[in-house]
Amino acid sequence: MLQTPFPARLALGHAADLIEYLNELPVAEAAPLLATLPLERQVELFDRPELQSAAALLLSLEPARGSRLLAEMSADRAADVLRELRPADRSRLLAPLEPEPAATLRQLLGYPEGSAGSLMTTEFVSLPADATVAEALDHIRAVERTRETIYALYLLDPVSGVLLRTVSLRRLITGAPGQKAIELAPAREPVAISADTPRDDVARLFARHDLLAVPVVDAARRVLGIVTVDDVLDAVVQKDTADAQRFGGVEELGKPYLRIGFLEMLRKRAGWLCILLVGEMLTASAMQHFEDELEKAIVLTLFIPLIMSSGGNSGSQATSLLIRALALGEVRLRDWWRVALREVPTGLSLGVILGVLGAGRLLVWQWAGFYDYGPHYLLVALTVGLGLVGIVLFGSVAGSMLPFGLKRLGFDPASASAPFVATLVDVTGLVIYFSVAMAVLSGTLL
Amino acid sequence: MLQTPFPARLALGHAADLIEYLNELPVAEAAPLLATLPLERQVELFDRPELQSAAALLLSLEPARGSRLLAEMSADRAADVLRELRPADRSRLLAPLEPEPAATLRQLLGYPEGSAGSLMTTEFVSLPADATVAEALDHIRAVERTRETIYALYLLDPVSGVLLRTVSLRRLITGAPGQKAIELAPAREPVAISADTPRDDVARLFARHDLLAVPVVDAARRVLGIVTVDDVLDAVVQKDTADAQRFGGVEELGKPYLRIGFLEMLRKRAGWLCILLVGEMLTASAMQHFEDELEKAIVLTLFIPLIMSSGGNSGSQATSLLIRALALGEVRLRDWWRVALREVPTGLSLGVILGVLGAGRLLVWQWAGFYDYGPHYLLVALTVGLGLVGIVLFGSVAGSMLPFGLKRLGFDPASASAPFVATLVDVTGLVIYFSVAMAVLSGTLL
Repeated sequence: MLQTPFPARLALGHAADLIEYLNELPVAEAAPLLATLPLERQVELFDRPELQSAAALLLSLEPARGSRLLAEMSADRAADVLRELRPADRSRLLAPLEPEPAATLRQLLGYPEGSAGSLMTTEFVSLPADATVAEALDHIRAVERTRETIYALYLLDPVSGVLLRTVSLRRLITGAPGQKAIELAPAREPVAISADTPRDDVARLFARHDLLAVPVVDAARRVLGIVTVDDVLDAVVQKDTADAQRFGGVEELGKPYLRIGFLEMLRKRAGWLCILLVGEMLTASAMQHFEDELEKAIVLTLFIPLIMSSGGNSGSQATSLLIRALALGEVRLRDWWRVALREVPTGLSLGVILGVLGAGRLLVWQWAGFYDYGPHYLLVALTVGLGLVGIVLFGSVAGSMLPFGLKRLGFDPASASAPFVATLVDVTGLVIYFSVAMAVLSGTLL
Repeated sequence: MLQTPFPARLALGHAADLIEYLNELPVAEAAPLLATLPLERQVELFDRPELQSAAALLLSLEPARGSRLLAEMSADRAADVLRELRPADRSRLLAPLEPEPAATLRQLLGYPEGSAGSLMTTEFVSLPADATVAEALDHIRAVERTRETIYALYLLDPVSGVLLRTVSLRRLITGAPGQKAIELAPAREPVAISADTPRDDVARLFARHDLLAVPVVDAARRVLGIVTVDDVLDAVVQKDTADAQRFGGVEELGKPYLRIGFLEMLRKRAGWLCILLVGEMLTASAMQHFEDELEKAIVLTLFIPLIMSSGGNSGSQATSLLIRALALGEVRLRDWWRVALREVPTGLSLGVILGVLGAGRLLVWQWAGFYDYGPHYLLVALTVGLGLVGIVLFGSVAGSMLPFGLKRLGFDPASASAPFVATLVDVTGLVIYFSVAMAVLSGTLL
């Protein structure tokens, strides 16, 4: 079979460009091209999470080559790719591996997605704590090719294997060859995490300590693996993308916008739209409930969209602030009452500002003769103003408490979306508006 | 004056813990504590962007110490802190510095916020391209303390200073002492950026090439400085926070939620809420325009909230998808028509699904006897269904085009917020709904 060869500049250039080229092709065309590359280059490509359809491409290779590739890839990426395969394919590819790498991969596959364990690689550099600088450098030179990073070295208790100190390569090379490596390490307990640490917390730790890598340790502080900054950066971008999409009321796409199929896109969007529509049907029921009032005071209907949207907007503001504050760890679950104590006066003040504006608009139109809101226009203006105060207050408090509620129930606070908050506030908003109307207008319009 | 001393474990522990402790204190209390620390420790604190009120704290120190600190800090952080000072204070602190560091800081201050230039530090390691491994390592050992990272070395043309190759420390230490450093570098043009590269593009490049640092070069490819991965991670988190807040309809807070004052919070939220309220006032005008229809067919008002919110929701979905796709570079400005070509069938399909659901709800209520929508209930159901089709289609297309429009006009596409899209779609949605109603119900209800 004749194959289009690679463009020459891609074969030797940056892996990222080659990946972009392969990503543009259907798997059936990318697979034979991939097969022409030397193993080292294939490893380089499969090591990047940007390579799409990596699982399908891996299966397209000769089985022996596929297994070899898994053994040579960084363990964290190999586990990610294996995670996408069916159990049968997974076992088949793992079977020819040496017992040790196979066990490592099986262990990595056991960690839940989004945990430090799932981000971690087992290819790190560790040394007994009594090693000299010269010994450490010799060891690094020997293993350099097979380690994801060598810029952090973990010094372990020679007997128990417990992590004692972390020393950076930059400090290590400043030492004299005969000096003990541990003398160059900062004299403090190294930063370390457990395998079940959530991705958000890992990212926060990297930002907090300006880390390049962090060791993952078991309960006895023995090193299981490391998480490196490049994987954290990828994870942060991926998580923030998912959060942004969910806040907009879409399921996480998981793929670039232009790469997603029509039916898949429809499925990711229709679900929430339908749920929200069903939620909004309660507004029709609420309106039906106030049918008599509506007929008597049709003027009230004119301001329904304005009032409802103000409630949704203030709710969306509060929710977006709290989702992010919770994700960044600025606010914890137990702070909910501190937040509520802030949102009540804030919501009340915002409500008063909008209430004055809304009622003012009505009065200006009336006095300027643009529109006649009837003989009781002053009371109608009061209804609109007070309605806005109540709805904005309710929106701010409900919107700020929603992420706490979700977190308390074990969901990601970022599951709350702007449309969801708006729908939540809409129904209550209508009830607030009509209740205010009945109180203010009873005996006159109603 | 007696001062509360630092808790002992903080004085020697992780800088991040000490910063957290200082951040909890008002500047007036943090300043005297800070003054008791040795210069090296102060430098460590000021080098972290997490230290709040860094500018105020810097001013609180003796002027000579403040200038010294600026000289010892990493240049990128020093420039960030200086940026927050008044020009008079800035000049006073820069005056005692040596001409060279002062010029460097002035140059960094000149780059616009959010550009690679503003993220960059000038403390990098460069060598003539003919240096040997031994020479390179000696140089690194000599300058290690004063460089932000030493893991990437830039090999320059000895005459022109142009960047030829980048070699990593991990590769360098595997070489023989007499070997040329350049032989260990990958034989390809190094990745580099210009000082005006936007932050989003810089972040993308780091994710794409798994970089620890990237050189910033001028037009002749001479190295001006480097951007390091820790600063990129901070910048990504900060930008995503700002985007999430703006999408929720709030101005970027710029501070943790619980740290922001009541009036500042009010200002960040009231602005957009007022603008949106004024926008929503158009819905009242639209409703007034259709006053006759409303009076004749009050049944139509029951579905206004449901229909309007569906438009807003579909718009919010499309906007959130496109903001993110543009930020990640998955979609470019010139792709707007490809997006439009996808959103028309997607919006139409979503509209049909919601239209069937909405009309179905009305028919079920009618047939089950929950509510009587009058003799023309079939036509009312048709109006609701067709209205939903039109509004969801409009919402999807308008919502997806809005980020392109903003980008085309030179704004950040992420300035579009869910409430803004909802407001945009609400007014048009009402007009669509009443136009459909007049077409369907003319001669019967209207």
